[in-house]
Order: sequence, then C-alpha cells, then structure tokens
Amino acid sequence: MTDGQARLIAEAERRLGPKAVVTDMADIEPWLTDWRGRLHGASPAMIAPASTEEVAEVVRLAAEHRVPLVPQGGNTGMSGGATPPVDGSALLLSMRRMNRIRSVSAENRVAVAEAGVVLETLHHAAEKAMMRFPLTLGSRGSCTIGGLASTNAGGTQVLKFGTMRSLVAGVEAVLPDGSIHNGLSGLKKDNRGYSLDQLLIGAEGTIAVITAVALRLVPAVAGRAVAWVGVASPAHALDLLRFIQSQTDSLEGLELVREDCLQLVLKHVPGSRSPLRGSHAWHVLVETTTARAALDVGGQLERLLSEALKAGIIADAALATNEAQADAFWKLRDSISEAERAEGQTLAHDVSVAVADMPKFLVDASEQVESAFPGVTATGFGHLGDGNIHFHVRAGSHAASDWYEREGDEITRFVDDLVIAAGGSISAEHGIGQLKRAEFARLASPARLHALRAIKQALDPLGIMNPGKLVP
Amino acid sequence: MTDGQARLIAEAERRLGPKAVVTDMADIEPWLTDWRGRLHGASPAMIAPASTEEVAEVVRLAAEHRVPLVPQGGNTGMSGGATPPVDGSALLLSMRRMNRIRSVSAENRVAVAEAGVVLETLHHAAEKAMMRFPLTLGSRGSCTIGGLASTNAGGTQVLKFGTMRSLVAGVEAVLPDGSIHNGLSGLKKDNRGYSLDQLLIGAEGTIAVITAVALRLVPAVAGRAVAWVGVASPAHALDLLRFIQSQTDSLEGLELVREDCLQLVLKHVPGSRSPLRGSHAWHVLVETTTARAALDVGGQLERLLSEALKAGIIADAALATNEAQADAFWKLRDSISEAERAEGQTLAHDVSVAVADMPKFLVDASEQVESAFPGVTATGFGHLGDGNIHFHVRAGSHAASDWYEREGDEITRFVDDLVIAAGGSISAEHGIGQLKRAEFARLASPARLHALRAIKQALDPLGIMNPGKLVP
Repeated sequence: MTDGQARLIAEAERRLGPKAVVTDMADIEPWLTDWRGRLHGASPAMIAPASTEEVAEVVRLAAEHRVPLVPQGGNTGMSGGATPPVDGSALLLSMRRMNRIRSVSAENRVAVAEAGVVLETLHHAAEKAMMRFPLTLGSRGSCTIGGLASTNAGGTQVLKFGTMRSLVAGVEAVLPDGSIHNGLSGLKKDNRGYSLDQLLIGAEGTIAVITAVALRLVPAVAGRAVAWVGVASPAHALDLLRFIQSQTDSLEGLELVREDCLQLVLKHVPGSRSPLRGSHAWHVLVETTTARAALDVGGQLERLLSEALKAGIIADAALATNEAQADAFWKLRDSISEAERAEGQTLAHDVSVAVADMPKFLVDASEQVESAFPGVTATGFGHLGDGNIHFHVRAGSHAASDWYEREGDEITRFVDDLVIAAGGSISAEHGIGQLKRAEFARLASPARLHALRAIKQALDPLGIMNPGKLVP
Repeated sequence: MTDGQARLIAEAERRLGPKAVVTDMADIEPWLTDWRGRLHGASPAMIAPASTEEVAEVVRLAAEHRVPLVPQGGNTGMSGGATPPVDGSALLLSMRRMNRIRSVSAENRVAVAEAGVVLETLHHAAEKAMMRFPLTLGSRGSCTIGGLASTNAGGTQVLKFGTMRSLVAGVEAVLPDGSIHNGLSGLKKDNRGYSLDQLLIGAEGTIAVITAVALRLVPAVAGRAVAWVGVASPAHALDLLRFIQSQTDSLEGLELVREDCLQLVLKHVPGSRSPLRGSHAWHVLVETTTARAALDVGGQLERLLSEALKAGIIADAALATNEAQADAFWKLRDSISEAERAEGQTLAHDVSVAVADMPKFLVDASEQVESAFPGVTATGFGHLGDGNIHFHVRAGSHAASDWYEREGDEITRFVDDLVIAAGGSISAEHGIGQLKRAEFARLASPARLHALRAIKQALDPLGIMNPGKLVP
C-alpha cells in the first residue's frame, strides 16, 4: 500500500464511517476478477460511499493523494472495464451502496436511480408504477444502472428502444475535480452546450463517476408474442425483419441463431428442446409486444409468419402458446454462451456492421476465419436487427488447452480487420475496457484517438479515473 | 485585414480555386447579420469549400495562420451562433457549397447529407425514396443540415421523433487540427469510447466543423389528421396530451397557443381566421400521423377529441377536413412570431421545464413578469409536450422605441431566474450562441462551466473555431 493510499483510506474511514471502507482481502477478492474470469487485478481497499456527496469527497481525496480509482457496479462487464490494474496502484470505488431509487414517475415517464441500483430492481420498481424500463440483458440480476450507463449497454430490446444512450434522460456524476454535474432535471429539451450527459454515457468511468441516472420509462407490456423460426440463411432472417417491420410497430426483438449454436444448447443445457421438428441452417427468435391490451399480438404474429411462410421468407415457425414456452424459447437464446463454455474454449467478438451488410458479413467472415485457422468453428448469433452479432470462434475439441492464450490475439486481429474492412465496429455493445484497448489503438482513426486523448487529459489531468481503460 | 487573414485567403484561393473565396463586401454583407437582425459582425472574406477535404485544408490554414473561422449554414440561428465577431478578426466559413445528398437508403432508413444541404431539399429527397426525415421547423427552406446538427435543432415534431440528437446516426467533421472524424458508417451500435458524434451535436461549431451527417429516416406519412382545440388552461392541454398518448402512438405534434397570440395572428396575418367560433383562453394544435394507409387517423382523432370533450378536458375542437385546412391551422401557429413583430417589440425566451411542471410555470411566470414589469404582456406558446415554451414578453404599444435595448436584459434575467428556480433550461432548442452567453455564464453550474471550458481548450487550443460562442 502506498502512503497516498493509506492516507486516503484513513481519511475516508474518518469522514464516511467504517462501512465505507473495506480492507479485508476476503471481501475484496471477488471484485478483483472480471466477469469472464480472464483478467485479475489487485487493490488494497474498496471504498463504498453511500451518497453523491460522499463520492465527491472520495474523488477529492483521490485527487489530493494522487490515488487512482476504479469505479465498479455489478462487475458484469465483458471487457474488463471495472477490473483494477495488477500493480495494486488503484483503489476500487464500489457504487453498490448507492442503491436508492430516488423516484419513479409514470406521469413524466422517468425514473431516477442511483448508480448502484441493480437493473432487475429497477424493472420491478417500474412495474409497480404500471410502467416499464425496456432495456434488459442476461446479467440483469447483478448489473447496475451506473455500469449500464457508463458502458452504453445494449441487450435484446435495442431494436425497438435503443441502447442506454436513448434511454438516459440525464446523468448525475462526480467529475475528477470533485465537482458534481447534475443533469437529472429530466428536461426533454436542453441546449446548454456540449452534452456532458452524452459524453459520460459509454465513457467507462474514465472522466467521471456516474452517481445517478434519470431513465426513460415506457408503458408496461400488455401482451407479447414469441416465436421460433427456421430460415435458410441470414439474408432470409433480414427479409423477415424488414417484412415484420413493414407491417407493425410491435417488433421488439429479433435474434439470429446458427444451427450449431442451438445444437450446443440442446447438448449442454438440461431440459432444453428444439422448438421446431426439422433441422434448419439458421434460426430466428422473434418477439413482438404491445402496451395496448386490445391488440392481439399473438394473432398478429401468427398471421405475419404465415404470410412469410407463403412468401418463402421462412421455412417453419413455432409460436409460443404460453408464457412458459416463450421463456423457454428465450432461454435457448440466452444459454448459447454458457453452452459454448461447456463445450470448450471460445473466443468472443462483439461486432457490428450496417444492418443490411450483416448477412453477407456473417457468412463471408465465418468462411474466411475457418479457412485461415483450420480446425476452428466461426459462428455468429445475436441482434441482427441492430447489425450487432456476437461472432464467436470455437477452438474445437482437439485444440490445445492453451489455445486461447496462444492463438486468441491473432484470430481476434484477423476478425477485427474483417470488421473494419466492412466499415464496422470492433465493439458494438461491450465497450473497450482493458480487453480491446490494444486493438482500438491499432484500428481507430487518428482523429478519434487524438480527440479521446485530449478529452481524457483535459477532464482528468491527474489520471485518477479508471486508469488503463478505454483511452489507449 | 490582418497578415494572417491575407495569407490564408491567398492560399485558399490558390488551392481551392476562386469560387471558394468571396471578398466582395456586397456578397458577404447579408451573412454578417443574424436571422433576427439584432447582431452585426464583420469579416473581410467568406471561404466556401466544396468538399470535406477542402474544409480540412481551410482549417489547417486557419490553424497555421491563427485565423479564427465562423462556420455558417443557412444563417437562420436564433442566438447569433453564426454571426462573426464585430472586430473582423474571423473569416466566415460558408458550408453552402457542400450541398450534396450523398445517399438515401430506404432499406437502411438512413440518408447521408452534406452540411450545406437545405432541410427542405432533404425532405424532398427522402420523399422520393418513399421515406421521410421527420424533423421540421419554420426555416426549413433556408436552414442547413450542418447547422441543424450543430445546434441540436428541435421544431414541431420533437414529441414523436426527438431533436436532431435522436435523428443523427453519425457525423463527419473536421477537427481544429485539420483531421477528419468519420462517423458516417451508419452503425446502430458502436461503443468505441466517448461519442464524438454526440459531443459535436449542439456544439455550435466551437470544437469542429460538421461536414456531413447521417440521418435516420422513418416511413413516409400515409395519413395525417390536424385539429384545433380550445381549452381552459395549460393544465387542460397537458391532460389532453396525456389522454391522446394513452390511446395511440400516432400523436406527432401538440402545440399550445395562448388566446392573445392567436388574436395577434388574426390581426396581422392576412387571410387568417379562427378555427373555432367562441373564444378560449388557450388553444391546442394537435397533429396525428400514421405510416400505415389502413389506419384512419382522422376518425381516430375525431373519436378521441369527442371523448375528451365529454370528459371535460377540452371545450371545443375543429378537425381539419382537408389538407388545405390542416395547413391553415399550422399557419396560425407558425405565424405567431411574425405577428408579434408586426405588433411591436418582443423579447423572446426559448425555455424548458419538466413537462409536468410546464402548466404551472407558464401561468405563474406570466403573472410574475407582468407584475414586476408593469405594462408588458408575458405570454407563451409552443411545444407543450416537450416542456418547451417560447416565453415571449411584449412591450405594449406605449413602450419607448428603445424598450428592448433598455429593459431587455433585466427582463431576461428575471425570466431566466424563474426558469432556473423551476429546474429548467434557459435554452431549450435555440442554443447559446452569442446571445445567451452571459446568462449561461451567470447561471450554469461550476461543474458544467469547468467541463465545457476544458473540452473547448483541449480540442481547440488555438481558439480558431467559432470564437466568442457558446463557451463563456
């Protein structure tokens, strides 16, 4: 522990109370490793303030003693953005004690939640007000509002409601000098200069700590329909997307799954079974919802799928006949990563290209990766309607146990080059964090790198905010 | 003309050709005064590049010779953001030769337009592709895409589609060092660090020149219904808004007009007539639209208004029976500023508060201003559903001819204090420009001012981008 750290810890304990400072290594340990278990950091203490003022206090102490802070919510990030450096130079700044939902207004369609509120808790609070916060993702039981905003999280409902960026109505944050930015007014229109709120969304805690977020709510779901569809190719899946969108505003999710991904789920996830009888090269999970009880989304989706069948867009479809079946369909989709882990080593890439380009990209990129790296399986699944696919490369059962470490970087560079050549992004929704920093530096334009570095330096001249993340 | 300016002009002429440099004062003159005719600047030349590369060239010359540039589109801004400084130290950078629509894709629902494309031209291009760019405002025949993005413009359809911020899919811009940021990929998801696109939207040309914008398109309008409604108070208008929104997604515009504003229009605008027989304290213009030909929005709106009448929410309503009448209703709303100018001196404030707070704010603020400044009329009209009202203070016919100059600042400070006390914004959609800079400096939080100044200094250390605007 450095002298500065010791002084910060002592001061924080004195001013914020003993609850706000954790130094027992057994309590800190779980928060030093990232969600995927691939990155391990070190830190002598975790500071856990309980209010915005206390966060400001801690940040001022960090500036005074030149001790970097690593903000952390649910620690569910995919790119190591919340894992501290290995040298122990930084302290963890846990936001989990800031877990109040300050307000939920059905009238204004806005909820204000502190950074440490767990997503599922907010879902329930919105439901109690007959409203809905429409962003959701697999880690909803652990991930926090602050982390979701700081990483501009996506998920499965982006098609209709957008990423966090579209759902954040305002941000409260502590800047690196300890001053507090309050953007929680919930104004629908506010043109007072550069949007700090927008700048902080997706900034991964590198220029401020988000302490609370005003979130847009939408009317509660009155009905939903879920179907599992077999298609011949990603191009057919895109045709289905366009067709449904041309007929209704109810489309909320459209997830693409390749046959091999489904087979892995059926093999490794107990109780899972295929919704369709025959075999299909590709599958699509479709969800439509409505906030109006009068609209029969089930009947509507059945009609649309039957037309799509007649038009040759799809090969087969099964409409979930009850909520349990709908959940079972979603579970097939949500279990792919888990099934892949059970099967063996997997290299994940969260990439995007323009929606119209995705079918071709998916097929071409798989072929090119499999031909360049014999033995691997390159597959894709995910948010076709957003042009965002989780492009995964599996080692195969005969791979060496250190395949990931030995070949991972080279395969990733190969995939990233294909993405950039297609005009896409090497990080669609998972952010840069630590994991993608080198690739970001390699592939970003000089203008972008220059601007990011200049902004980071201007707002955090002492380098105390989440060092080693995002900005290369 | 300074030596630096002379060198820049000579170099620009040599590299970009004679068309790109205007030094004839008769040609420059119209661009030195702002839209409202209140601010007058000076500049020895106007540089008009025709491509992104040429803009980069000019910016590099400006950096080299330390000559500030004032980017300008249609010169329709409300806050003097495109008017050069009075000392002639800056050159105008006209974007109007960059007027190509690079692409319109109905499939991807995106159009890419250069900064100098006039809004109405884009509207027509989208229509030809059976699509629609849904942002519109009074100056649509003059204002340009670059200016709209740089000021995060709003308008009358924000209720459904949001401001420019929601409609911009990507930005291409030249940074103050002459490097080009290309964010035009049209990706729906892209988490590669701080969003430069979002930072540049609303930045008023102070940290980059926007050269092109990717814009989201929506399906073309298949049907619309427009009604003029009489209500007893702004609270009733808000009730109407909530009621319609609870019953349909078709609501696209809801504009509030006070009786005195309507009377001024009837008095000053030839051919205008009141849509309703009786007199009402407040009026509401309602527009619903649909992209689906099968939906009878006229019948739907008629039914909703009849229910609202029965429920006592509204006092009377007239549904436009044809397009000409619909346009006539809109013309009443769009002519208010013109009618006010014809009547006498008017002090305009473009303010926002939370939507739910607007009815009370509007009534209270009018009373307080009229009581603090005897003789004036304080009234409001505009985008109730966005919490954004144009709060205008009229001098009255007996006011001195220099009323605006003598009393304007004091009244504005009084109004702005009321807005801030209500948690609102002193600039909802018109930006800061020159006009609101002092008030912005007086009323913004230290955190916001610090961050804005730091970002400006970091990205434009030489101060060559639109000096004297926005950042106090």
